[in-house]
Amino acid sequence: MTRRVLVLNGPNLNLLGTREVTVYGTISLDEIIEELTEHAATLDVALTHVQANGEGAMVDALHDARSWADGVVCNAGALTHYGISLRDAIAAIGIATVETHLSNVAAREEFRHHSVIAAVCVGVVSGFGPASYRLALDGLVSHLDGLART
Amino acid sequence: MTRRVLVLNGPNLNLLGTREVTVYGTISLDEIIEELTEHAATLDVALTHVQANGEGAMVDALHDARSWADGVVCNAGALTHYGISLRDAIAAIGIATVETHLSNVAAREEFRHHSVIAAVCVGVVSGFGPASYRLALDGLVSHLDGLART
Amino acid sequence: MTRRVLVLNGPNLNLLGTREVTVYGTISLDEIIEELTEHAATLDVALTHVQANGEGAMVDALHDARSWADGVVCNAGALTHYGISLRDAIAAIGIATVETHLSNVAAREEFRHHSVIAAVCVGVVSGFGPASYRLALDGLVSHLDGLART
Amino acid sequence: MTRRVLVLNGPNLNLLGTREVTVYGTISLDEIIEELTEHAATLDVALTHVQANGEGAMVDALHDARSWADGVVCNAGALTHYGISLRDAIAAIGIATVETHLSNVAAREEFRHHSVIAAVCVGVVSGFGPASYRLALDGLVSHLDGLART
Amino acid sequence: MTRRVLVLNGPNLNLLGTREVTVYGTISLDEIIEELTEHAATLDVALTHVQANGEGAMVDALHDARSWADGVVCNAGALTHYGISLRDAIAAIGIATVETHLSNVAAREEFRHHSVIAAVCVGVVSGFGPASYRLALDGLVSHLDGLART
Amino acid sequence: MTRRVLVLNGPNLNLLGTREVTVYGTISLDEIIEELTEHAATLDVALTHVQANGEGAMVDALHDARSWADGVVCNAGALTHYGISLRDAIAAIGIATVETHLSNVAAREEFRHHSVIAAVCVGVVSGFGPASYRLALDGLVSHLDGLART
Amino acid sequence: MTRRVLVLNGPNLNLLGTREVTVYGTISLDEIIEELTEHAATLDVALTHVQANGEGAMVDALHDARSWADGVVCNAGALTHYGISLRDAIAAIGIATVETHLSNVAAREEFRHHSVIAAVCVGVVSGFGPASYRLALDGLVSHLDGLART
Amino acid sequence: MTRRVLVLNGPNLNLLGTREVTVYGTISLDEIIEELTEHAATLDVALTHVQANGEGAMVDALHDARSWADGVVCNAGALTHYGISLRDAIAAIGIATVETHLSNVAAREEFRHHSVIAAVCVGVVSGFGPASYRLALDGLVSHLDGLART
Amino acid sequence: MTRRVLVLNGPNLNLLGTREVTVYGTISLDEIIEELTEHAATLDVALTHVQANGEGAMVDALHDARSWADGVVCNAGALTHYGISLRDAIAAIGIATVETHLSNVAAREEFRHHSVIAAVCVGVVSGFGPASYRLALDGLVSHLDGLART
Amino acid sequence: MTRRVLVLNGPNLNLLGTREVTVYGTISLDEIIEELTEHAATLDVALTHVQANGEGAMVDALHDARSWADGVVCNAGALTHYGISLRDAIAAIGIATVETHLSNVAAREEFRHHSVIAAVCVGVVSGFGPASYRLALDGLVSHLDGLART
Amino acid sequence: MTRRVLVLNGPNLNLLGTREVTVYGTISLDEIIEELTEHAATLDVALTHVQANGEGAMVDALHDARSWADGVVCNAGALTHYGISLRDAIAAIGIATVETHLSNVAAREEFRHHSVIAAVCVGVVSGFGPASYRLALDGLVSHLDGLART
Amino acid sequence: MTRRVLVLNGPNLNLLGTREVTVYGTISLDEIIEELTEHAATLDVALTHVQANGEGAMVDALHDARSWADGVVCNAGALTHYGISLRDAIAAIGIATVETHLSNVAAREEFRHHSVIAAVCVGVVSGFGPASYRLALDGLVSHLDGLART
Repeated sequence: MTRRVLVLNGPNLNLLGTREVTVYGTISLDEIIEELTEHAATLDVALTHVQANGEGAMVDALHDARSWADGVVCNAGALTHYGISLRDAIAAIGIATVETHLSNVAAREEFRHHSVIAAVCVGVVSGFGPASYRLALDGLVSHLDGLART
Repeated sequence: MTRRVLVLNGPNLNLLGTREVTVYGTISLDEIIEELTEHAATLDVALTHVQANGEGAMVDALHDARSWADGVVCNAGALTHYGISLRDAIAAIGIATVETHLSNVAAREEFRHHSVIAAVCVGVVSGFGPASYRLALDGLVSHLDGLART
Repeated sequence: MTRRVLVLNGPNLNLLGTREVTVYGTISLDEIIEELTEHAATLDVALTHVQANGEGAMVDALHDARSWADGVVCNAGALTHYGISLRDAIAAIGIATVETHLSNVAAREEFRHHSVIAAVCVGVVSGFGPASYRLALDGLVSHLDGLART
Repeated sequence: MTRRVLVLNGPNLNLLGTREVTVYGTISLDEIIEELTEHAATLDVALTHVQANGEGAMVDALHDARSWADGVVCNAGALTHYGISLRDAIAAIGIATVETHLSNVAAREEFRHHSVIAAVCVGVVSGFGPASYRLALDGLVSHLDGLART
Repeated sequence: MTRRVLVLNGPNLNLLGTREVTVYGTISLDEIIEELTEHAATLDVALTHVQANGEGAMVDALHDARSWADGVVCNAGALTHYGISLRDAIAAIGIATVETHLSNVAAREEFRHHSVIAAVCVGVVSGFGPASYRLALDGLVSHLDGLART
Repeated sequence: MTRRVLVLNGPNLNLLGTREVTVYGTISLDEIIEELTEHAATLDVALTHVQANGEGAMVDALHDARSWADGVVCNAGALTHYGISLRDAIAAIGIATVETHLSNVAAREEFRHHSVIAAVCVGVVSGFGPASYRLALDGLVSHLDGLART
Repeated sequence: MTRRVLVLNGPNLNLLGTREVTVYGTISLDEIIEELTEHAATLDVALTHVQANGEGAMVDALHDARSWADGVVCNAGALTHYGISLRDAIAAIGIATVETHLSNVAAREEFRHHSVIAAVCVGVVSGFGPASYRLALDGLVSHLDGLART
Repeated sequence: MTRRVLVLNGPNLNLLGTREVTVYGTISLDEIIEELTEHAATLDVALTHVQANGEGAMVDALHDARSWADGVVCNAGALTHYGISLRDAIAAIGIATVETHLSNVAAREEFRHHSVIAAVCVGVVSGFGPASYRLALDGLVSHLDGLART
Repeated sequence: MTRRVLVLNGPNLNLLGTREVTVYGTISLDEIIEELTEHAATLDVALTHVQANGEGAMVDALHDARSWADGVVCNAGALTHYGISLRDAIAAIGIATVETHLSNVAAREEFRHHSVIAAVCVGVVSGFGPASYRLALDGLVSHLDGLART
Repeated sequence: MTRRVLVLNGPNLNLLGTREVTVYGTISLDEIIEELTEHAATLDVALTHVQANGEGAMVDALHDARSWADGVVCNAGALTHYGISLRDAIAAIGIATVETHLSNVAAREEFRHHSVIAAVCVGVVSGFGPASYRLALDGLVSHLDGLART
Repeated sequence: MTRRVLVLNGPNLNLLGTREVTVYGTISLDEIIEELTEHAATLDVALTHVQANGEGAMVDALHDARSWADGVVCNAGALTHYGISLRDAIAAIGIATVETHLSNVAAREEFRHHSVIAAVCVGVVSGFGPASYRLALDGLVSHLDGLART
Repeated sequence: MTRRVLVLNGPNLNLLGTREVTVYGTISLDEIIEELTEHAATLDVALTHVQANGEGAMVDALHDARSWADGVVCNAGALTHYGISLRDAIAAIGIATVETHLSNVAAREEFRHHSVIAAVCVGVVSGFGPASYRLALDGLVSHLDGLART
């Protein structure tokens, strides 16, 4: 059965490919999602992509996912570090969520070393550039398979 | 004269009754508001209810209340702990506000022990489940009566 | 069946009405207890009041309550912030306890923002002046009713 | 050539002139912008003004500015202290931004002493009331002139 | 050309499958490495596995890898949180290293939330149980491919 | 008119002269009070001395002083560092209080460097051994004279 | 010669056997003291037992022990963590004191990890349930024997 | 009437133009003061300039200004971060003072993010290079005009 | 049935009797183990002693103990304060372990006040010199007897 | 024999009587010294007064005092809180020094609660306005008398 | 008489000359030791060199040195910052030890600013590249000469 | 060519040989400088010595050195720990500076463990008494030689 996964991107990620390219690379968010969708198809996964710059809209998207999604891949951008409402939403909807980042946040500013959402996610994948999304999706599917087998 | 009170609920509270029921119970937000409205009627209070998942929308609701409300009962959800804009809005509108929580936040994670809005509220009621709203409204009315008498 | 509730007041609360009246108001502790007793009667609750300036005496009163009380309303005064023995006593006796304060402690000195007893109480009511006691009692009864129904 | 500048105001600043007038004065945001627009004209600067109470909307406005603005004057209100998404947006769009405040935030509550956006701005002007905006614009123009000369 | 990768496991990981199975699962380290070796073959990667309970031995293994390895997948166990010598070794050998963990360390004790090696690694994969190793290897290969293309 | 002053000594001060004589000297508390009483007579001050090892009893003594004392000289012993109830009592009774210590607490253990009562006292005298009491009394009288002149 | 030892128990320990039995076990304080007295007899030690819920009373008991006791076994309960007056009393009386706890306090809440009295005691025994008292007494006797031999 | 303003520069600012030019630019302090003096003339302001490398000399200059100055523009250099005596002098003389910096101190080392003098100044201007002085003077004049109108 | 117990000593304990004798006494580790072995015989306990200066070797010894030991007495030396791998090993092997120290670590440097292993041990005995080992063994046997009875 | 005492006043104290009179009163430093000199004469003490706004000058004055002074009364002003050079000078010269303050610094800003010089002084007198100097001198003489008697 | 000195190098120093050459230079550890040996000969000092990547091996080397060494020059690498066992070994063996570093650790990452071994060493030499070893040896000899003269 | 070096000593170092001789020894600063001058001659270095008790004077000396010095040896005394202006001066003049101390500051009070100037110096030599100066000079020359060779 095809699994449905929400790919949720937070603030400023819509600028990918145009902003700070030495940090984030030149690939755009559309290209990342396109490639990810192709990869998802090989795993029998259907993706829905949402990008929002506000925390409220991200929470809304997560609430909406309750009625249809099997899992979530979430790059919360800067909200990773202070979005406690986002954390509560992930915990509340009870859908397996994987946290991901393009860059290795541990190697950046001190205030980016702590994630308020990691503890309510299944796991974390960070530092592999656009490939982080693919690995996060693989990890999510692996996790869901594990649950399915239980 | 009938008093008008804004009941303002923050992020994720729309999921009440469906989310983490061992923590928050099985009653839905609609049911809470319905019961609270009945209770309010006995106090000659008319309620207006707003729920929002974003801080900006909550600030908007508080600004709007300046033109009509006598008081506010506010469960800010996770924004309780980092929503300084919300705090400023409560301080700015000059309407008596009572902070309330369903659960006893002091018995939960460390990062939920501090409220950034408590200092600009009249008082706090927490830990009584849905009854917290009723007690908060009673406390608000008591406070307004006290002001009225002065 | 009539419920029995211990109202336990900590250090310096015997001075109410005479001390720092701009902060605590002019009503005395006797007057608060008198009004609370009347209110309790309407809820079929019988109150016993104890005030003590020492932590040991407060612990003794809580131990004694094990043999007769259904619930506790406790204003621990300054011991709220460092009385770990008091905390242990509340946890040990296994009787539902509500923490209450006349003033909004979150709006006072930094060292009054943390309560060592809140985590072992049912909930907290603070900031409504003498009405805090009444709301705390209402909350306690609501909590006991909930337990009774379970 | 006329320069185009985004004046971006954050949460609660729409209440200026009506809120806490002892702190913020009696002049309204509209009046400030009107005067600032006149001053800008003398510098051959065209202003666009956006006010929003939510962080997401502020981020959207900054993204939008990428296609047309030469600089930004930003009073982030309370988001100054925790809006890391806003910080990332300022860094991402690569447009010179000046942080400004009406009041001297260093003389207010401890939690207002730290700005998460200052490090990605050109500079800071605070404490001069409505004149802060004018000085911030002057500073921005001075900065752009310096870049132009390089 | 076949790539050679060091899989380096730190203290106590030799006990996998026998220790705290509710946290770490019932699969043994040998089984993980066996499966990983098969997966590696499909990527034209040859694995060498080293497990050590002492930091010095891990540092030795990393030094040794300088003469033959193209990349490292490292689960440093508890040394993740205080093994600064390990960190220096990873930085010193100049070989791309991916940090991985079976469990989601962000959801465990506070002292496990900080990694002293993350900042000198390419990226992090954690929380997917034995699959974490596979995803880490995928990420490492993706990273090496990226370098190869440059 | 003769002034009446409460000299209030806290826990363990009854052991003076017998305990840790290298730190506190060999003079007993009775001898200190005797000398202080003689000195007080020369200032037209009548002393009442209370020593207690429990915080509750110290609070009781301060409450009692409301009906008769013009000032207080208080050596709170170890309660200096955590006796917030004592602090509240001093603030509540509204009688000028001088904090005093035999030893120079700033030169002892770190946890003795902070006083929770100093902020609600008139001033502090510490480090002069038994003479600290005499100087504290002199300072108290000086303070009361100043008030008297106003 | 028979040695005399004060066994001093602090707040809430009188509830042993009735309170939180999953943590503290079902044996009462009387039973512990009875068994300890028998064990003491085999060591030619005579015990005197004092239990108090207030710090002042504990300090009084320690002062009293100066005239008759050779050593002290002390379970200070919650006062372990903030009873600086108790610490000063132990230091002042100059009698060898052993700190003991029924439970392993290091495995409980963070605020129970620090003891303010340990530094002025001979040593610590914790975590062995009622046996902790017996081991503490053995340790005390061993210590006194060592002093005797010197 | 011509206003008189003290421009007070702290330690190392005499080296401007020769030191770390990538941070501070190549313009010398003399050139800055010369340009500022011309700008001041257009505002009917007479400047007096003092530069000192010692805190004591800066305090002396501020004391001296009590007899003649209408305002102060102060770049305290490194003393900004620890010169509490300087802070007290600014507070003591009761003359409106504007804090200014050439560079954006918020973007430099952590220890430069806190100013001990900001809270006793009218406002802050930083980050605009030599133009910071001009904007600070404009802000000061604007502030004095506001006071004049009141 | 004879119980088998691992006595595990950490770094620098092999120097006992020769090093800092004012702190640790003049008895050597061999003498301690000899006496402890005799004492163990009276409890029907067979001891195996391991001393190692490296954390890895200590972890190895604990892993090895899984196949034969009923309990562990562990003096981790300085690793007590930072050996998280050691902690994980103790937790992983699931054998009752007692932490012990010769000296009263609470009375030494601040960095020796925290133990990272205490929370995964049964209990702690410290401060009784060589007798600490005997008491720790007694406590371990008492604990194992309790488990045996359950 | 007449004793010689240095009265050393730090930064900004020369402004006494003119600055912030609600905090410091209207008496000038000259008047304080004049009164203190008269009081000193009654104790057979000759005063030398030095006031300096720089730490270096205060250190020089203390060094100079080595050749002639029997004691020092020092009000270090703001340097109390960060003047470690001053602390070293007091420790180095080996002359008994008493710290004094006009106001009760414990009741002012947080950063004024810590003194870096207190630990190397004989004692502290603070909070009695100009009388603080007199009491400090009395305390110093009492201390010197005690030394003389030894 | 020829003095014997242990030169002890910690983790990763064996990679010198090949690792991060912009930080550590291109000279190898062998070359450093060779040059140092020649320099030592001119001081009548015989060197023994040990390099180890594990803390246990370093502790072993220090213990061994007790029987033959007159002094130690120690570059503990990363263990400088957390190797408390190493610290205890240095303190235990009672041989004068000098801490040294190639780079100026104070100018590197925050976590490298604190040394746990410095307090038990004679002194520190850091920042001079390979010359640090030579200066450290000179300092050690100077120290031993001083002891010899005493 | 003869190199010219500034030897800069900070507050209280003029007292050397007379002050706290157990800590600093009996040799005077003049003697140290005399010996150092002789040693310098053997290195073809000409010394200029400046000692000052004020931070401003030290900054002035450093500024002056810009026109003539090749390097600086600086013992900043207590200013080491808070003299940020001194730090800025060292950074500003761009002359290689070596920090030195007579005593091992890491073994003294906690507040002496951090140096604010170390990060802008070439290196540090501390703990060797008067020999520290000689070693510091040797290190400085070694550093300058290295620069010369580049």
